Amino acid sequence: MQRIYLDNAATTALDPLVLEAMMPYLTEKFGNPSSIYSYGRESRLAIENARKTVAKLLGAHPAEIFFTSGGTESSNTAIHAAILDLGCTHIISSPIEHHATLHTVEYFQQQHGIPVSLIRVLPDGHVDLSQLRDLLAAHNGKSLVTLMHANNEIGNLTDIHQVGEICKEFNAIFHSDTVQTVGHYPFDLRNTPVHFITGAGHKFHGPKGVGILYINENVQIKPFIHGGSQERNMRAGTENLYGIVGFAKALELAMTNYEKDSANIGELKAYMAQQLLKEIPETSLNGDCFGQSLYTVLNVAFPKTEKSEMLLFNLDINGICASGGSACTSGADLGSHVIRAFNNDPNKVAVRFSFSKHNTTVEIDQVIAKLKGMF
Amino acid sequence: MQRIYLDNAATTALDPLVLEAMMPYLTEKFGNPSSIYSYGRESRLAIENARKTVAKLLGAHPAEIFFTSGGTESSNTAIHAAILDLGCTHIISSPIEHHATLHTVEYFQQQHGIPVSLIRVLPDGHVDLSQLRDLLAAHNGKSLVTLMHANNEIGNLTDIHQVGEICKEFNAIFHSDTVQTVGHYPFDLRNTPVHFITGAGHKFHGPKGVGILYINENVQIKPFIHGGSQERNMRAGTENLYGIVGFAKALELAMTNYEKDSANIGELKAYMAQQLLKEIPETSLNGDCFGQSLYTVLNVAFPKTEKSEMLLFNLDINGICASGGSACTSGADLGSHVIRAFNNDPNKVAVRFSFSKHNTTVEIDQVIAKLKGMF
Repeated sequence: MQRIYLDNAATTALDPLVLEAMMPYLTEKFGNPSSIYSYGRESRLAIENARKTVAKLLGAHPAEIFFTSGGTESSNTAIHAAILDLGCTHIISSPIEHHATLHTVEYFQQQHGIPVSLIRVLPDGHVDLSQLRDLLAAHNGKSLVTLMHANNEIGNLTDIHQVGEICKEFNAIFHSDTVQTVGHYPFDLRNTPVHFITGAGHKFHGPKGVGILYINENVQIKPFIHGGSQERNMRAGTENLYGIVGFAKALELAMTNYEKDSANIGELKAYMAQQLLKEIPETSLNGDCFGQSLYTVLNVAFPKTEKSEMLLFNLDINGICASGGSACTSGADLGSHVIRAFNNDPNKVAVRFSFSKHNTTVEIDQVIAKLKGMF
Repeated sequence: MQRIYLDNAATTALDPLVLEAMMPYLTEKFGNPSSIYSYGRESRLAIENARKTVAKLLGAHPAEIFFTSGGTESSNTAIHAAILDLGCTHIISSPIEHHATLHTVEYFQQQHGIPVSLIRVLPDGHVDLSQLRDLLAAHNGKSLVTLMHANNEIGNLTDIHQVGEICKEFNAIFHSDTVQTVGHYPFDLRNTPVHFITGAGHKFHGPKGVGILYINENVQIKPFIHGGSQERNMRAGTENLYGIVGFAKALELAMTNYEKDSANIGELKAYMAQQLLKEIPETSLNGDCFGQSLYTVLNVAFPKTEKSEMLLFNLDINGICASGGSACTSGADLGSHVIRAFNNDPNKVAVRFSFSKHNTTVEIDQVIAKLKGMF
């Protein structure tokens, strides 16, 4: 059976060009980047070139880019540092953050007694930024604001420039989980008022097991993972050499083809949304689908029927990969904390379709045809 | 120029058979292991099979094996958990531990006020286990004992059964950094009194960026990295699918060929040691080279001369990869904290040669010939 993969917000296929860039480091070039002989220095050079590439593409300085094992570790590191190293005594977040943020925030709330304020979510899935200034003003002392750039489930985009400017007024630290936007949107970090952003290679056709943490040069933090002096004493552990090389290559490809890919993928999303609204009665869209929203993510609220309760299973049987929410929590089977935060309609079934450059209109038509048979 | 790679304790070449096992997951099988559709479940299955393989090879239960980004993260997790979750109020370690242990221990000493006792190191590089019982007895409350199985610089092996039995008497938690022995020695964890051990794929011809933490089923800890529900809620972040598959394959190959490989490598080490002692005057060996010692590591104390001060550089110029100590600290240029702990002779230059199944007697002869010209 032909597979139709519409879960690209969970993970993407590794680009063959990325694998090609990684292959020398998976075969003959295996030296430890921290070794001083020439063979190790070759590996070091590959990592430093990757860092320069990533920094340039994000408009950052190479010294601001740190390679990690992924977006989750990056967010853990940033939040950890904001509390323990930067003196934040209060956290402002939202109920629709990824669990990498929310569970780390809960950890500091429970274990360190850090008060947490969650920003209200509006019915369109946007966080109510008008509340941010009030929350910041209400707290004496330094706050950490952690708000994601794009929501991984509903696709809503938050204006991180606006958030950052408000944070500046209150001398707050601003961390943004940008795992769904790094590799999908251009960044100009030199002109973005943010202290920490994160990225994960596998979200944009790069390898799994590697990510970045951007740390603005104006903040000085201590390591989260202690040990060797890798990553300029900031992230210990032998470097994931091929992962790092692959991350940089994937980001390079993503940014080179950004205009074309984003236009095509955005059209697919719009087409699918329109077709669904037309073809499946009582269907609506979660989030701000046609407004401030990722071009890659479409979250659909299907009417609940006997058949549609098993919608994801039925899609799976037909070779269609889609998800009910974040892959990171799909084992839990509690439904989506994101959807619950703004729309707890028990008569709707939420399904996320997320797209990549590999998807086609033909695939969308096939999925629509299958879905029509399920209602 | 032909390269002679004698730094296998820093990292090893990825085995082509390991890469072959990883390739499907670097190409068509890219599904997110946490996704519920069949395509994700294929990835989940690969991970769970890898876990079973690793568990079986180490004599553990699959539920005791957790995949991480590497040995450093694993040791951080274990030490963190011992203090924060298991109630340890005192740490016993040694001055010759890897920095992944030592710097984490220092963090808890400095940030959490946890008292730390370092066991004495004897002139042969062994930790003085006769002191362990005294240190445990002197502390009221629960201790964490963190002692490595094999020292990465001098190769000395510590009897973890003996350490574990002493820990049991005092109800202490025992963590052992086994990064140099997992994949190099058989383990039977069901019959080993240890709570935590660690492993890193790239130390035994597996991939970089992936490791394991063994957590004995009798201890319950909380995650170090917070977020999604991966690794049974114990290690958040999208799984490094190909890394995990590669780790298991590398361990399988290592254990299948253990008898043959360890005998051959051990002979190479002995041969090189004997040749050096014979051919280079005033040369001696650091650690318990012919006693309780890794068959993979040879640490040589060369006489300091005008030429030998630049020994590693001269070896490098001749295409020979060896190291002054741990790769993880080679940037620091402070010399080895391990060698300093038991032998601070300013008239000696320490060089570590470490071997793998890919090395040959011919290579050793070539290295000896080059070394003779350097004195």
